[in-house]
Amino acid sequence: MAEDFLLLTPGPTPLAEEVMDALKRPILHHRTPQFQAILQEVAEGLKKLFRTQETVYLMAASGTGAMETAVANLISAGDTAIVIRGGKFGERWGELVEAYGGRAVAIDVTWGQAASPEEIEKVLKANPTAKAVFTTLLETSTGVRSDIKGYAQVTAKTSAVLVVDAISGVGCEALETDQWGIDCVVSGSQKGLMLPPGLAFITLSQKAWKQVEAGSSPRYYFSLPKMKKVWEKKQDTPFTPAIGLIVALSEALKLLLTEGVEQVLARHGKNAEAVRSAMAAMGLEVFSDASCTANGVTAVKVPDGVDGKKLVKMMRDEHGIMIAGGQAELAGKIFRVASMGAIRAEDLRRAIGALEEVLTKLGWKFPQGAGQQALDGAIK
Amino acid sequence: MAEDFLLLTPGPTPLAEEVMDALKRPILHHRTPQFQAILQEVAEGLKKLFRTQETVYLMAASGTGAMETAVANLISAGDTAIVIRGGKFGERWGELVEAYGGRAVAIDVTWGQAASPEEIEKVLKANPTAKAVFTTLLETSTGVRSDIKGYAQVTAKTSAVLVVDAISGVGCEALETDQWGIDCVVSGSQKGLMLPPGLAFITLSQKAWKQVEAGSSPRYYFSLPKMKKVWEKKQDTPFTPAIGLIVALSEALKLLLTEGVEQVLARHGKNAEAVRSAMAAMGLEVFSDASCTANGVTAVKVPDGVDGKKLVKMMRDEHGIMIAGGQAELAGKIFRVASMGAIRAEDLRRAIGALEEVLTKLGWKFPQGAGQQALDGAIK
Repeated sequence: MAEDFLLLTPGPTPLAEEVMDALKRPILHHRTPQFQAILQEVAEGLKKLFRTQETVYLMAASGTGAMETAVANLISAGDTAIVIRGGKFGERWGELVEAYGGRAVAIDVTWGQAASPEEIEKVLKANPTAKAVFTTLLETSTGVRSDIKGYAQVTAKTSAVLVVDAISGVGCEALETDQWGIDCVVSGSQKGLMLPPGLAFITLSQKAWKQVEAGSSPRYYFSLPKMKKVWEKKQDTPFTPAIGLIVALSEALKLLLTEGVEQVLARHGKNAEAVRSAMAAMGLEVFSDASCTANGVTAVKVPDGVDGKKLVKMMRDEHGIMIAGGQAELAGKIFRVASMGAIRAEDLRRAIGALEEVLTKLGWKFPQGAGQQALDGAIK
Repeated sequence: MAEDFLLLTPGPTPLAEEVMDALKRPILHHRTPQFQAILQEVAEGLKKLFRTQETVYLMAASGTGAMETAVANLISAGDTAIVIRGGKFGERWGELVEAYGGRAVAIDVTWGQAASPEEIEKVLKANPTAKAVFTTLLETSTGVRSDIKGYAQVTAKTSAVLVVDAISGVGCEALETDQWGIDCVVSGSQKGLMLPPGLAFITLSQKAWKQVEAGSSPRYYFSLPKMKKVWEKKQDTPFTPAIGLIVALSEALKLLLTEGVEQVLARHGKNAEAVRSAMAAMGLEVFSDASCTANGVTAVKVPDGVDGKKLVKMMRDEHGIMIAGGQAELAGKIFRVASMGAIRAEDLRRAIGALEEVLTKLGWKFPQGAGQQALDGAIK
């Protein structure tokens, strides 16, 4: 694969230079003062990134492992849980709840839209024993950002905890864990954190911890009480940590916190806005509703007469740029361009240039150069 | 940390040069022909390394994640399982079985010894409904290798499956999965495979797969039916794979298979034999019984009058060599020197030289230079 291959998928995202340098270092043993110091530093950095005073636990797993950690610890067989399904990852919450013997009450949202706090309030009233509401901050399958702040205001008035899949969201979209009153946030390494996949994160409010202690589902590798006990006793992980990824994470956190979380979000926001301007200038329409369009990834409708699958393939094979197609019911109908993590404005410029060529080859008519011009105008 | 820091712990082990080179490459997207080709190649290589015709599944997790995969899929609430406990990792099997509501019948073996096939046969007769026997190929906490071939002859005559934790064993100790009739082998990346931690493996016999299909424990991230379905349908993983580690794994497998699995085992065996000779020449005693001493790691008794914890600390702080102390009841009583993965004879030579200095400082009397001389004699 060419060295200048460009990854513009909503995970995995390109690695930051500093991360690549860290990954090639000789491996440390995890029970050494050197690694313990890194783990401490990472723990402090994660609290800042996740905007919480609570401990952020990490584990060697894909993001789904952290989602399962939330379900296995918060849901016991027979429990009712509300799951907001407006894309592929919302559906995963429902599958997980059912795998643990829970009853999943789904709020089905049209793909491309977000659920309103009012809808959640209504369903919570109809299901007063619900233990949790599971939702997604940034639904990468549709490019939608949910109104997490609004959801938290609703769950705060009930006994249910609010659990947010922020796998793609952390470092991409605003998320004020403590201030908004979110009870559980899960995330992964291969998105806003600019790392390879393989590291997952979870943090919980005190309200959620009480529910964890009462849980009865089988849990061992994903046991939160075990993680908490070992962390509080010796600031360590219960199982061999993904050492290499954690050393790389310490570099990624330095980058993010030196720039500042708010500045990182603003940069991604500006880049996403520029992508949307470019799409409009080429006569293309953003898939997600304008009221809930995300910054981390832009989902774009494939215009009539254009072969969406071919478009993605040509971007990859002719231009060395990997964008994402649509998933499940959206296959061939949308394509998605990420603007998260280490993706820079100049990468997006290259992508829009390539997209102009590909669209033209596929028969779509628009003023040549309009995409790049709009992008440049929005970014400068 | 100094660049010449030497890791001689039984996991994590040093990374192979080729592995380090692979880890710093730009990340591939997992849904590309490039990565799919690597995944195919890795799948073929793993079969050769695990000595099986069955698929070896991989997941982003520590080795314990693969152990949990075995338990969550093979044991349902109320099931009886036999666990062989002769060290820290044998105990983990018991904890896992109980976490899933199983009844763990323990065969407690004196640490430093291995269970005999006859003992297992006896306990299986007394527990005819037992669904599985859980054991450990290389118990790194004691330096013991179990008689897996003998155990498999026993379980083959029953309905119970034999599940082997070969986290430290694969690529270190002889293990003939198909030929011996082992039903389930689990392993991890940071031992014989010369990789960072974060990747785990599992393979099952047809007998074990039947039991998996009948299982009723909650499982999602660790669901074997899900892994199998996705692999058979599109040769893919159900969740984002640990891409970077898998690319590095393809390099590690090339190294191991080019040298040849038998040659790798013979080399480790020779190195371990040399370590044992060196210890004897310094008047030290190997902890594990000679009948079951492992090749991957040598556990050595701390001699009378020597402070075992200080010994490990001085090796690290004065010589930049990380060996392991004893765990749990063996803390301070043994130290452990690994000879697996990318650890070379010259690394062991450096370690024995340092150990001679440290032992002398701690007041232990022996013929100076005897350790290194014995090591050289055995290795040449």
